[in-house]
This record gives sequence, C-alpha cells and structure tokens, in this order.
Amino acid sequence: MPLGATLAEWFCPNARIGEMSESLQSTEAWRGALAEFLATFFFVYLGCGGVVASGAVEDEKLDAERLLTIAFAHGIAIVILVASTGAISGGHINPAVTLSIVLAGKVNLLRGIMYWVMQFLGAVCGAQVLKFVTPPAWQGNLGSHGLAQGVDGFAGLVMEIVLTFVLVFVVFATAVDTRGPVATAPLAIGFTVLVLHIVGVPYTGASMNPARSFGPAMVTGTWKAHWVYWFGPLIGATLAFWVYMGIFIHSGPLIGGALASWVYARVFVPMGSALNP
Amino acid sequence: MPLGATLAEWFCPNARIGEMSESLQSTEAWRGALAEFLATFFFVYLGCGGVVASGAVEDEKLDAERLLTIAFAHGIAIVILVASTGAISGGHINPAVTLSIVLAGKVNLLRGIMYWVMQFLGAVCGAQVLKFVTPPAWQGNLGSHGLAQGVDGFAGLVMEIVLTFVLVFVVFATAVDTRGPVATAPLAIGFTVLVLHIVGVPYTGASMNPARSFGPAMVTGTWKAHWVYWFGPLIGATLAFWVYMGIFIHSGPLIGGALASWVYARVFVPMGSALNP
Amino acid sequence: MPLGATLAEWFCPNARIGEMSESLQSTEAWRGALAEFLATFFFVYLGCGGVVASGAVEDEKLDAERLLTIAFAHGIAIVILVASTGAISGGHINPAVTLSIVLAGKVNLLRGIMYWVMQFLGAVCGAQVLKFVTPPAWQGNLGSHGLAQGVDGFAGLVMEIVLTFVLVFVVFATAVDTRGPVATAPLAIGFTVLVLHIVGVPYTGASMNPARSFGPAMVTGTWKAHWVYWFGPLIGATLAFWVYMGIFIHSGPLIGGALASWVYARVFVPMGSALNP
Amino acid sequence: MPLGATLAEWFCPNARIGEMSESLQSTEAWRGALAEFLATFFFVYLGCGGVVASGAVEDEKLDAERLLTIAFAHGIAIVILVASTGAISGGHINPAVTLSIVLAGKVNLLRGIMYWVMQFLGAVCGAQVLKFVTPPAWQGNLGSHGLAQGVDGFAGLVMEIVLTFVLVFVVFATAVDTRGPVATAPLAIGFTVLVLHIVGVPYTGASMNPARSFGPAMVTGTWKAHWVYWFGPLIGATLAFWVYMGIFIHSGPLIGGALASWVYARVFVPMGSALNP
Repeated sequence: MPLGATLAEWFCPNARIGEMSESLQSTEAWRGALAEFLATFFFVYLGCGGVVASGAVEDEKLDAERLLTIAFAHGIAIVILVASTGAISGGHINPAVTLSIVLAGKVNLLRGIMYWVMQFLGAVCGAQVLKFVTPPAWQGNLGSHGLAQGVDGFAGLVMEIVLTFVLVFVVFATAVDTRGPVATAPLAIGFTVLVLHIVGVPYTGASMNPARSFGPAMVTGTWKAHWVYWFGPLIGATLAFWVYMGIFIHSGPLIGGALASWVYARVFVPMGSALNP
Repeated sequence: MPLGATLAEWFCPNARIGEMSESLQSTEAWRGALAEFLATFFFVYLGCGGVVASGAVEDEKLDAERLLTIAFAHGIAIVILVASTGAISGGHINPAVTLSIVLAGKVNLLRGIMYWVMQFLGAVCGAQVLKFVTPPAWQGNLGSHGLAQGVDGFAGLVMEIVLTFVLVFVVFATAVDTRGPVATAPLAIGFTVLVLHIVGVPYTGASMNPARSFGPAMVTGTWKAHWVYWFGPLIGATLAFWVYMGIFIHSGPLIGGALASWVYARVFVPMGSALNP
Repeated sequence: MPLGATLAEWFCPNARIGEMSESLQSTEAWRGALAEFLATFFFVYLGCGGVVASGAVEDEKLDAERLLTIAFAHGIAIVILVASTGAISGGHINPAVTLSIVLAGKVNLLRGIMYWVMQFLGAVCGAQVLKFVTPPAWQGNLGSHGLAQGVDGFAGLVMEIVLTFVLVFVVFATAVDTRGPVATAPLAIGFTVLVLHIVGVPYTGASMNPARSFGPAMVTGTWKAHWVYWFGPLIGATLAFWVYMGIFIHSGPLIGGALASWVYARVFVPMGSALNP
Repeated sequence: MPLGATLAEWFCPNARIGEMSESLQSTEAWRGALAEFLATFFFVYLGCGGVVASGAVEDEKLDAERLLTIAFAHGIAIVILVASTGAISGGHINPAVTLSIVLAGKVNLLRGIMYWVMQFLGAVCGAQVLKFVTPPAWQGNLGSHGLAQGVDGFAGLVMEIVLTFVLVFVVFATAVDTRGPVATAPLAIGFTVLVLHIVGVPYTGASMNPARSFGPAMVTGTWKAHWVYWFGPLIGATLAFWVYMGIFIHSGPLIGGALASWVYARVFVPMGSALNP
C-alpha cells in the first residue's frame, strides 16, 4: 500500500483510501502532471506578476489598493486555473493541496510526487520568464515572500498554518466531499485564495503554497525565513485534512468525534432532556 | 412544540413549521454545530483580519480603497464559508440568521441554541488567535464595531436593521425558498455581505451579526454602543423573516396580504377594469 | 390586445407576444409588484448609500477607488436583488427594463404599470430612509445623477442610451432568450451594471434607470438635466429590445435581417462561392 | 477542405476537424457575425471607456486603483459579452480567439473571416462612438495600447504571447473541451481577461486582442509598436491551440506527447517500478 494511504490510515482510519489509486503508466497521470506544470507556471507568472506590476505603479509601497490588486491577481488566477485543469489533473497547483489529497487517498503517492516535481519546476520557470520580460527597475524580489516588520517566525508560522487550513478546508468541503457544491468549486477555492491574501499579505505575504514561495526565491535568491513557507502550508494542509476527514466525513469515534461525544454527553444531554422531553 | 415554532406560528400562521425538526442526539446536529464553530472562527479571523491588515497598510485611515478591501474580506469570506458549510450546518455563521431560520421552523430551537453557543465561541477564539499573530502596533481594537462621528444610537440601530433585513431577505429568497437559485446561494449571500459593508462600514461598521461584533469586543474590551449590534441584527432578521414568509411564501390573508388586498380593491380594480375590460 | 403587445407587434412582428399575459387579479402579480417595491427600495438605498459612504471617506472627491466602490455598490446590489426577486417578479428593479419586457410581450401593460409605480415609490422611500440615517455633513445630494463638466446634454443622452442598450441587451440574451445561460443571469446582469458604472459614472453618473435617478432627486430636489435620465434609458431599452428581438430571436425579414440579407447578397455570396465552391 | 482545417491538420493531426463546418448561406452564421460586431463594439466601448473614465478621475496617472479599475472594465465586459453572445456566435470577441477556434476546426475559415471583419469593424465603431461622447480634455489616446518605458519590443511581444496563451488555454479548457466546466465558461474567460490585465497593463497595456488594439489606434492614429499587438496575440493563440489540442485532447504521439513519452520512459519508468512494484 502506498505511503500516502498508510499515513491517511494512521491519521484517519475511516478515510476512503485508494479510491483513485492510478498507475504511473497511464497517459492520464502524465497529462495531469503537465497540467500542473503549466498551471503552476501561470500561477507564479500571474501572482508574482501582479505583485511586480502593482509595485511598478505604486513605487513599491504596499497600501490598500495594492493589497487588493495583489489579492485579485492570486485569487482570480486560481479561479481560472482550477476551472481549466480541474478535469485534467484535479487542479491542485499547490504542493500543500497535493499533500492533503494524497493523505486522503484520492491520489496515490507516486502521482503526488509527479505533481510536486512539476509544480516546483513550473514555479521556477514562471518566475524566470517573468524576470525576463520585466524591466530591471521593476523587478525587486519578484514577489518573493517574507515576514513583515514585527511579525516573528512563530507568528508567521501560525498565520501560514491558519491560512492553509482555511484553503484546504474549502478544497475538501467543495471539491472532495461529494455533498459539496462541486460545480462552483473553482470559484470557491479561488475566492478563498483572494480573501486569504487580503488578510495575510501584510503579515507574511500569504503564501500557503511552497511552490509559489520557491519559484521567485530561487530566481532572485531571497531565502530569508523561507522555512515558514514550507512548514506552515504543509502543517496547515495536514491539519485541515485531518479535521475535515475526521469530523465531517468520518463516521466513527476519533479525536474530533470523541471530543464532541464527550461534550455532548456531559453538557447537552441533561439540557436537551430538560428542554425537549 | 418548540418555542421557535410557536413564535413562528404566532408571527406567520402559514409558515411551514417543523419540517426539519431534528433530534439533538443526531451526529448531524453535532457536525453542524462544529461547522458553525469553525466557520465563525474563520469569518472573524478573516473579517477582523481584513480590517487590521488594511489598517496596517493605510495607517488606520478609512478611505475608499480600505472600505472596498474590508467589504471584500467580509463578503468573500461568507461566500467561501457558506459554500463549505452549507451542506453540513446550513452555513448560518451568524446568530441573527440562525434566529430567522429557527423562527421559520427549519431548525428546531435546541439546534439553534447549539449553533448560537458555537458561533459566539468561534468568534471569540478567532479574535483571540488573530490577536496572537498580530504585531501590537497594528492591533487597534481588532476590527470591533462602533458608531461613526455624527451617527447616533438610533440612526445606527436603523442602519443595522436595514442591513440585516436585506441579508436575511436574500437568505430566504435564495436558500430557503425552494423557487430561488439555491445553487448560487453562497455567492448571493456572500455578495450581499460585501455590498452591505460598502454602505454600512462608514456608519456603524456594518455588523448585521452579533457574533462578529462580540468576538473582538470581548478580546479588546470595546463595548461602546454594543447594544446596537445585538438589537439591530435581531430585529432586522425577525422583520425580514416575517415579511418574506408572510408575503412571498404565505398564501392566506396576513398583514402584508391584507394591506395588498386593501390597496388592490380600492385603487387597482377600478383602474384595471377601465384599462383591461 | 394590450398596448405593449401592439407596440411590440409594430416594432417587431415576430416577437412572441402575450405568452405571459396575466390577470391583474392574480396574487402573483401583487407579489411581483411588492417585490419590485422592496428591490428598488434596497437598490436605491445601497446604490446611493455606496455613493454617500464612499464620499464620506474620500471627502466627496471622485477618484478611481471611489469609482470602483460605487460600481461595486450598484452592480453587486443588482446581482443579489435579481437573484432574490427573479422568481417572484422577474427582477426588473428598473422601469426601462420593465418597458423592454412589456414591449416584448412577456409582461402585460397593466402589470408593467404596477411595476413602474412600485419602482418609483420604492426608490423615493429608499432615498428617504437613507437620508434619515445619514449625518447631514455626508448627505450631499444623496447620489443624485448629473452631467460632468464638459459633458453636454446630447453627449449625456448618447452615453445613457448606449449604457442602457448594453444592459437590456444582456437582459434579453441571458434571461429572456431561452438559449441563454438563464441560471447565471443574475450574475451577468449585475456584473453588467458594475462595468457600466465604471465607464459611465464620470460622465453622467451611469443611471440607465429612471427610478434610481428619480428617488434621490425627489428627496434632495436635484433636477438639473433630469430629462437625460428618462429619455436615455427609455430610448436605449427600446432600441435594445428591437435589435435583440429583430435580429437574434426573429426569423423573417425585418430591418436588421433585411440589412444583413442585403450585405450578404451583394458582398459575401460572390466571395463565398469563390472561396468555398 | 477549408484552409483552417488544413492548418489544423498540419499542426495537430488528431484534432476533431470539421465538426462544426457550416455554410456561409446560413442565417446562423450571419447572426453570429452581427453578434461579434455588437460584442466587439461594446467591448471596445467599455474597455477603452474604463481607461478614459479612470484616467479622467486620476489625472491620467496609472496607480494600483486605476490598474484594478481598468482590469475590471475589460474583464467584466468579457464576462457579460461571452455570456450574452456565446449561444449566438460562440462569443469570441477577439480575432486571436477566432483564429484558434478556426485552427481547431470548430468554425470554418469563411465564417472565421466574417467574424474577423465584423470584430475589426465593431472595434472601430466602438472607439468612434466613445470619442464622440468624451470631452476632449479626457480623450488622450482613447486607451490605445503602447509599451511602457523600459519594455522593449521583444519583451512586449513575449508578454503578449504569454497573456494570449493563458487566455486561449482557458478558452479551450472551459469552452471547447467537453470535459470542462462549460456552464461557467463566460465567468472563467472574463476573469482570465481581468487577471491578465492586472499583470499586463503596466507592461504593454495587455491587449491579447488585435481588434481591441486596432479600434482606438485607428480613431486616434496611435500606431507606435502596433505590430506587437498583432503578432503577440496571434502567436500566443496558435501556441495555446497547439499545446491544448496536442497534449490534453490529442491521443496519439505528437511533439508534446512524444516529449512526455520520452521523459516518461527515461526518467519515471525506473523510478516507478522501484517505488510501486
């Protein structure tokens, strides 16, 4: 059994494991990997491009109009790229999302590794092409992520964990959970990225995506606090997978369920029988 | 019969009462309550986070770009959270919305109380975590609500009543009324929150949600004019429930229908028979 | 036969006339009229409220961020109000739209008059309530329409005709024409209002709706160039009805079809037979 | 066989050619051409109008709020116009998109030429009417495209190629590919135009559409670097057609497929057999 499935088993015994386990030999897997390459290329080109373009017209100052512009660049890019590649690759465009999908057993570990390689490759190529077309005076650090003055590494890590938790929660609720509004999932996921950028950009740049952080960092050599953008998203995605599968899809006693049962038995049963006999 | 249903009976005799009356013992009710906890946590984290983040980059000044940024933070947060939790809890994320749904008899009173507790708990936790990650220089009152210079308590109350009336009207028209566009309800409801913030933020902060007001007020101790953010939303939600159910779903003579009948008989029948014999 | 149908017959002989001709006695018609009252009330409250709120924070200066804020206030208000009242009244919220629907024979003239009365009544009430809650220092002319410096009456009229033409064209293409994307019509129509405001606000205020112009004008007594906001929208709506029904729904020879036939026979048939034998 | 189909055959032997090959004599083709005329007229009127209107209120300065306003004007205009004309003409509104659809064999060459003529005609008329209603002090170059200081012709060409590649990729993924989310294609395509403007406007103006560039250039005589706006979009559209059809729809060995097969056989088969025996 692949490692992803084993991990998923360990975290969440009742997850539906292996439903989509596919062979590496399939053309579909390769199409998916190429789609992830292109989509991550475009995402970094458009996201970092939005940072660079809005920086060029605002003299690098971050104000509310630039914040909103950056949020739209990233959020709407995700809307269109998930809509375009969802049917081909699942439209992850983010190694943290891929991790959560692998943990859920919806994609096997080998396909996950193909996606990861392609995502990082696409991110570097997107940043490189953006650098090529951008006048040196505008380049700055090409939209690399970094912590704001006053935000220390731990606060930044917590922010990235919360942001990625929300993102992956929405991914599970709208695109993985079959009760969710699957038809509007690209919109919901992209809008999630939009609103998370409004909140997160002034703190950490709002990565929630190691590939988005890695691309421009590689091209410009900006590695300060880079660890935050790997640990934050990967931890956040794992927690969101675990909470969503454990509480909202899961049907037996697990940590979440056990906690709920405990609260239920101790607090609400007496109240319930008093009020609703 | 639960109190909610009784109230609904009193306000609006023909409402479809008790259709979804569920037992407190059901796992579904608990999943719903936990979903409300998480969604309200996220809503306060993202909404107040948008206020704090845009305040950090604009030096606390409220101008049109910050107004729009705050409106997007709250509105898009509601889009994604209703899309994510709609199938689990109904996606209320707001005690005033829960009140109207209880009055309509779609959720029984006990489940409503579970939701209310979880919403206020989630709001306080969301504000607390936001405070933890935010540098003290940016915190301000963490997006607590308050009345603008020149807006007295009564004007603020009327504004909150109108805003919440529109919100709950849209909730009933798109998500409760089976003729409505249920598939796009999360978008419609979230966009409603967006536009209501554009109008209401400069007046009262545009709460329309006692939990959203309570969370940061609790964490920062900002209680000035706090009563407006409880009475306004609860009155507005009750009125919207009564108008929507009484006029647009209801089929017998009620206050709205009686008024319409009166106008019809006195004004339009003569005109109608003159023009369209 | 009602006058609307007669006019429609005259303009466009093949329009599907009278399909929805309803009796004034029906409760449905009254519900529709009340829905139009409420929706136009909300639209004026939110649209003018957006103008007032953004003016309050920008010291009445019109810049790009306020332009965008005003466009969102009006556009998103229409999205949510059409989504909410579409199933009840058709979601016109605009006398010019109602005119085009009456001309198309989808609503009979009496019901059209009921809608018109309710729309103007709702607009005046919405502006009045907005005035009540707004501090006098912010009120200005409550978002009444007027022509910019350098835009004369005729240019303003042409702008309003073009704007309303686009609006009613989209209404026909997405909500009347059964081939159109009816499920997303509220979004398409509201987004149309949004983009038309971006272009039109600096010229004429972008009314395209006599009720929206009339409400705040009545409450504040701002009547300068008011004729533009009646003739422009009503002419634009009539032209759009005529073009859409005549060319895109119509199936026999009419002015549009005749022109197309003429161009076809004189220009393209020789070319076509040369290239595609 | 029409030239478009022949070219498509040459580029991509397995494309589904000739599926929609229609006769020039059909009324449908003429309706389509007239719809393309109107839609391109409106697109240029609204897009250039957004540039002019935001320039009028910002004293011609390009800052982040104007950038966002221009992006919304163009992007939302495409949302509503594709939604309105998609069922009539396919909703191209762009000669580069029409080229890619002709290459894919979905529209025959003659119909493509009809569309092209109408698109350029509509663009010139739209710019002309906009000029008529606009006070001379605001006109500038009516939103004509040009290269920013520091962006040379080749960088501009690459930017336009990438932008158009993304646009046509999304068109194929959401509207041509039957697995895609066809119902939300107008939204996805228009949002693509929106995000591409955020990135591209400070560099080249973000044309990706020769008709959009040609209209205001013709009316104001602004021809500097105009070649970029023909070669960039046409090359980008051709590449996107070729990549999408060749890799994601195509099922036999082609350049993309061959490359993937090569990488697969040399790199992943050993790894795959080691990890997933």
